[in-house]
Amino acid sequence: MDFDLARQIAVENESKILLLVLDGLGGLPHPETGRTEMETAHTPNLDRLAKESLCGFTVPVATGVAPGSGPGHLALFGYDPLRYDVGRGVLEALGIDFDLQAGDVAARGNFCTVDGQGRVTDRRAGRISTERCAELCARLRTINIDRMELFVEPVKEHRFVMVLRGEGLSEGVADTDPQREGLPPLPVRALSPQAEATATAVRIFVAEARGYLADKAPANMLLLRGFAQRPSWPSMQEVFKLKPAAVAQHPMCRGLAKLVGMMALLTGPSLEDSIATLRESWGRFDFFFVHYKGTDRAGEDGDFVAKVAAVEEVDRVIPALLELAPDVLMVTGDHSTPAVMRAHSWHPVPFLLRAPWTRADPCDGFNETDLLKGSLGTFPATEALPLALAHAGRFRKYGA
Amino acid sequence: MDFDLARQIAVENESKILLLVLDGLGGLPHPETGRTEMETAHTPNLDRLAKESLCGFTVPVATGVAPGSGPGHLALFGYDPLRYDVGRGVLEALGIDFDLQAGDVAARGNFCTVDGQGRVTDRRAGRISTERCAELCARLRTINIDRMELFVEPVKEHRFVMVLRGEGLSEGVADTDPQREGLPPLPVRALSPQAEATATAVRIFVAEARGYLADKAPANMLLLRGFAQRPSWPSMQEVFKLKPAAVAQHPMCRGLAKLVGMMALLTGPSLEDSIATLRESWGRFDFFFVHYKGTDRAGEDGDFVAKVAAVEEVDRVIPALLELAPDVLMVTGDHSTPAVMRAHSWHPVPFLLRAPWTRADPCDGFNETDLLKGSLGTFPATEALPLALAHAGRFRKYGA
Repeated sequence: MDFDLARQIAVENESKILLLVLDGLGGLPHPETGRTEMETAHTPNLDRLAKESLCGFTVPVATGVAPGSGPGHLALFGYDPLRYDVGRGVLEALGIDFDLQAGDVAARGNFCTVDGQGRVTDRRAGRISTERCAELCARLRTINIDRMELFVEPVKEHRFVMVLRGEGLSEGVADTDPQREGLPPLPVRALSPQAEATATAVRIFVAEARGYLADKAPANMLLLRGFAQRPSWPSMQEVFKLKPAAVAQHPMCRGLAKLVGMMALLTGPSLEDSIATLRESWGRFDFFFVHYKGTDRAGEDGDFVAKVAAVEEVDRVIPALLELAPDVLMVTGDHSTPAVMRAHSWHPVPFLLRAPWTRADPCDGFNETDLLKGSLGTFPATEALPLALAHAGRFRKYGA
Repeated sequence: MDFDLARQIAVENESKILLLVLDGLGGLPHPETGRTEMETAHTPNLDRLAKESLCGFTVPVATGVAPGSGPGHLALFGYDPLRYDVGRGVLEALGIDFDLQAGDVAARGNFCTVDGQGRVTDRRAGRISTERCAELCARLRTINIDRMELFVEPVKEHRFVMVLRGEGLSEGVADTDPQREGLPPLPVRALSPQAEATATAVRIFVAEARGYLADKAPANMLLLRGFAQRPSWPSMQEVFKLKPAAVAQHPMCRGLAKLVGMMALLTGPSLEDSIATLRESWGRFDFFFVHYKGTDRAGEDGDFVAKVAAVEEVDRVIPALLELAPDVLMVTGDHSTPAVMRAHSWHPVPFLLRAPWTRADPCDGFNETDLLKGSLGTFPATEALPLALAHAGRFRKYGA
């Protein structure tokens, strides 16, 4: 939806909207059974919801386009992911609650293993422990770069964030991550003349880090990618008149949520933790985004059985969500991740919306076959939030 | 799909995509049987395909808009037909393999019959033979126009192409074809001051041609329309990273194919010729557009039975197409041409896509009723190619 239209018609009220995202939800049939993950899963609660809801499928970015989790979530928040584009470094920094300031340049870092010829042999340094990562970051943080402030913050396992702060920085620096093993890290390269000073600073950081890490195998080198500066976007408060909160543990999802103005609530690693956090904060916000990563993780691992189990795990907490009595409840994914493909895919994403003022669709279950009978059909994911706002009574009539 | 997005995510691989276009495919019920052409046709092969495919209907240009074959095909090639607009003259010239150069102005010509008062009595000059057309063109080609080169090339029956080559030409010249009988040809008129020199050249051509043709009834005059210069469009190679080829005999389809960068393969008049050409060139390209004109011809003639037979003729070659084992196969039309309307129509066009990584839709046959159960619903024809590219593994993930 056009943001000017949203600003014109959005109003505040007492309603609560809950968006439950099962990351990578949609799937494809198992070759032996012909049934998808959702068709295989035993989901009495989600099936009952489907019977009471508007159903359909969303297209996160565009027909045929497999989205990363960034664009997939932005669309669900009402933001056109082709217009609202943000680099990985910013998402990682925001995700660990780093206080990224305007002008800072952030990059996603990996500790990696290189061989005697400097070629990458493991892009993840054997997934070193988060503690080890923190130790290495603490040392790298002390590298001195003229007229700049440097931050090196551990994320998880081999992952860290590097942030440069100073005057006249630019995000126009190419990745040093060659994206596959057997190649050496790429040289630090400015993508425009304005980025030359930033590239020089990064070169100094990489050079000194290389020296320090040389005898720290498996983490004997590092890779940087997604150099980016924090964009300045309209917030969900300003555009949609919502007080939004995110219940998410995944760093990138937390980062995205903050970019659109959500409060990223602190929560634990389990789904029960998420429900507890949601319950505790229910009175303080009116839009809640709850993120569940298990479905995508299983899908990317190609673990059909685990993905089925993940869907069933979510099914079991549905009653707890309904106890909160949200006025509008949406259950969907940010993209599909069929276990048989072991990757994000372009397939439209299962979607349901339960609210007052609906005529329930003739869908008997929450799966790719039953949802085909839904009245929403296949629609852009950016329309999910406007639909929820309408059902929550938060949109005024347009025009006389 | 936005071309910049396509450029960003398209990759090459070894897959083959086949687009089979039954010109004017969609229809309407016969008043006596209540069944459409496709419902009447016996199409066991297409029906089986529908059972294994993603199904739906395309909208070539916009809801309610009956497209010409130009816009209808451009949409299937992924080009927004409202943005990529090209004059008829260019299509005709490219269709006969005329080497149209940048700056040339081409027009579609008709020999016609006029009465003693100069009024058009037959816009097609009784469909004179192609040989007669060639004789007349050979003479008209010798007309001398100051500082310009003139080409007059026969197409088929009463149709020809006129091309002017020279400095500073403009396509801003109005049609001389009054589009109906009983009126005289329209005077040659410049649509802008810059087109004055071009209009003058055309006036000289028309004047001398009128003199020469005066005693050549039924071809005793000519009509010109669709003055146009060759546009410079991004190619399918550049945007979608495809090596595309067209198997088409129809001049306009060949012209269109060339404008988007396809190799227009030489082929014979029958569907078997097309299949043979396709088979011979299978190794050299990765995207194939196969055009079948019979359905549209029968539809425009209002010949319901012939259109049914045309659909059945295509059905019989489906096994030969499947033997080539395309990774993605699309069967659709460029627009609908219901025999009962005797004209192109705005009705959404039947579409199927067979590919790996699909969950087959519950469609039992390839016809307007069964395809309603398809998961694709009714969607813009410009999304067909992106969908095919995704299923062929030719799109990278978008965003992190």
